[in-house]
This record gives sequence, structure tokens and C-alpha cells, in this order.
Amino acid sequence: MAAWRERLAGVRGVLLDISGVLYDGGEGGGTPIAGSVEAVARLKRSGLKVRFCTNESQKSRRELVQLLRRLGFHLSEGEVTAPAPAACQLLRARGLRPHLLVHDGLRSEFHQVDTSNPNCVVIADAAEGFSFQNMNKAFQVLMELETPVLISLGKGRYYKEAAGLMLDVGAYTKALEYACGIEAEVVGKPSPEFFKSALQELGVDAHQFPLKLCQRKRQTTRRLA
Amino acid sequence: MAAWRERLAGVRGVLLDISGVLYDGGEGGGTPIAGSVEAVARLKRSGLKVRFCTNESQKSRRELVQLLRRLGFHLSEGEVTAPAPAACQLLRARGLRPHLLVHDGLRSEFHQVDTSNPNCVVIADAAEGFSFQNMNKAFQVLMELETPVLISLGKGRYYKEAAGLMLDVGAYTKALEYACGIEAEVVGKPSPEFFKSALQELGVDAHQFPLKLCQRKRQTTRRLA
Repeated sequence: MAAWRERLAGVRGVLLDISGVLYDGGEGGGTPIAGSVEAVARLKRSGLKVRFCTNESQKSRRELVQLLRRLGFHLSEGEVTAPAPAACQLLRARGLRPHLLVHDGLRSEFHQVDTSNPNCVVIADAAEGFSFQNMNKAFQVLMELETPVLISLGKGRYYKEAAGLMLDVGAYTKALEYACGIEAEVVGKPSPEFFKSALQELGVDAHQFPLKLCQRKRQTTRRLA
Repeated sequence: MAAWRERLAGVRGVLLDISGVLYDGGEGGGTPIAGSVEAVARLKRSGLKVRFCTNESQKSRRELVQLLRRLGFHLSEGEVTAPAPAACQLLRARGLRPHLLVHDGLRSEFHQVDTSNPNCVVIADAAEGFSFQNMNKAFQVLMELETPVLISLGKGRYYKEAAGLMLDVGAYTKALEYACGIEAEVVGKPSPEFFKSALQELGVDAHQFPLKLCQRKRQTTRRLA
């Protein structure tokens, strides 16, 4: 523990990833990773500022927080930085009206955004929603635009579920990028803007917390617990 | 015509693309492009060697030739160079047993290939077959291999159908390449090996025919007609 105290000297905040760090998805929503519930509780008791920073894009923050609470974590929606709300800010700031290629569980995050007569595409981990038909529709919307804008919530390659490895949003984003000859704008990790917005909400500067803590995944939560 | 005679001096053979050059797909199989039936007939009468060189990967050569005959073209299966037979040669030569992510119309081309216990993936224009489930299955097969081998029949970005633009095999190949961190081997145009095999079957050398003839698409068939 002495080594940890030394490494944490001067640190004021901690960003924690969620999926694969605090819990693993699976039947009934998933299971907490051993030690993670207690690790989060200890971090919060320690006086460090804690924020949850996720690329989860199958669920709204509300659903995600409900699931985590059922699994024993103590947190609120306001403590979670997720790509969908960040994308909504970006859409409003630039007057963009998205065609949504997203999971049904995520649509509620966009209910205040104008989606009529789309002038961009937002793609997220749509899972079963990545049908040939839905991919073609998103592609057609992009090809009808003079300057196609594709906003991707993360660029993950794949993730693990009980049924095996699943292709993540990054793979499908590559398909649309190639077909249209464009490059997507990524909202979510690993975009620096995304981490900065999480820090802003924490009220700390980048030099006041070690980013590595949230990137080392399971190893970290186990050590802290 | 004088200019054409001059340009064709020394030319012994012609490779013709099929889709978008001889016919456009659509209801009832499609329609011949104006002038193309007569252009093919004239080329064949001219004494030039003619071969049909296509990336068609939704249909077997048999189905394709049946369709073209219905549309008024005179040709046989033996005159068509297509990626699936070329892929079968490659699979046999390298002892590869494919998992097939292909259109049902193409499966008959692979009926002599061992597909048990797959050690590679062959991807073609699967159209509706590009479901999330089928893409994950192909991805899982690749990830279980020590050295993943992905063979892609062409690298087309998209094509046009009556219902609008459709994503082609190239886009889905990019998705798998990105997710696995690999590069696919392309069988079909624009692979030089594919053109060379068509020339071999024609019995002419590359310097004896102008490739541009088959790459200028509609413009060319119209001019020749």
C-alpha cells in the first residue's frame, strides 16, 4: 500500500471505466468484477473525486446506472461521462441533425435532438441493429450529403459477451468510412476532448490525476480493492 | 471508326466487365445497357478473342450466364472469369478450408471445397447475409486462428440497385480487417493475378490488348456499338 500512497500523492481525482473494469456483461445484465464494488466505495471514502467514464453506447446512462446499482455500486447518472450526451452537445453546437444508427436502448439520449431531414450520421454500437438494410440506409444518407459527416461513438474493435466476441462500433465505422471515402469524427474514448470534458465535470486539471489508473483496467481495480 | 481501327491495331483480345457494362441489375434480373448486346456480337464477329471478366459474387457463373442469355447475349460459362472459381483454386493450392460469408447464390461454386473445421474466411458480396450475427461468426472464426487468413472476392465499395446504393464486399472486408488487425487477400479485380488468369484462358499476353477497354465501362460499350 505504501507504493500506492506514493503514486497517489498529488492526485485529486480518478476516472473509472465501467464495462470490463467494474463489471462484465452477460446474462441478467452482468456480474461485478471481483473487488470492484469495494474498490469504488473505498475511492469515494478516500476523498478523491471519482467519475465514471465509459464508451457504453448500447444503453442510456439511466439504464447503465440502474444496472450498476443492482450490482451493488453506489453512483448517480450525474457522475457518468458517456459519448451520447457529448455527441448531443456537438450536434447542437454545429446545427447537425443526425440519422441515428444506434441501439434502441440509446435512442432516449437523443430525444431532444432534431432528427428531421438529416445532415449527418451518428453511429454507435447498434449490435443487432447493424443489419445490411440499416447499414445501407446510413450509407445512403451520407452519400446524399455534399459534405458527409459521420460521428462515431467510440472506435472499439470488439467486445466480449457470453455468446462470444462481438464486433464493436469501430468495425462498422470503418465500413462506412471506406465506402464513402471519408473519416469519421470520434466522440468518446480515446478522443482527448472526451477525457477533458470528464475532467471539467470533476473540476480537476489533467496534471492532477494519473490517466493510467483508468486505462489499466482490471489490474487496477484489483490492486485498489 | 478510323480512330478505333487505329487504336485496335495489334490488339488480339478484349476483356469485358459485365455488371454496369453489359447490363444493369434490377427487377426481373436486370436490363441490357443500350447497344451492349450488339457490341458483344460485333466483337465476337471481328475475330478478336473475347472474355468476360467480372467481380460478380452474388451469383454462380451458371446463374449469371443464364441471366445474360435471357437478356440476349451469346456466351457460355467457359468464357467467364469470376472470383469464386479463382478463390477455389487458391484454397485448394494452399490447403485452406473456408468459412463462407457469401451469398446463397454463390455457394454452389464452393461445393467441391472442404469447409469442415475452417482455417480461413472467404467473404463475398453477401448482401442480406451481412447480418450482425453472420459478421460476428466470421470474426470469431478469424480470431480463433493463430494466423487469421481473410480472402475477399473483390474490394468494391458499393453498387447501385433499384432500391438505391448498396454496400459492397469491400466495406465489410474493411470492418473485419480493422477488428482483427489484419489485411485481406483480394481475389478478383483489381488484383493483377485475376487479370492474368483471364489472359491465360484467352491465350494472349498483356501487351496484346488494351486493359482500358474493359475499364471505361459504359462509355466503351456505347462507342463500340
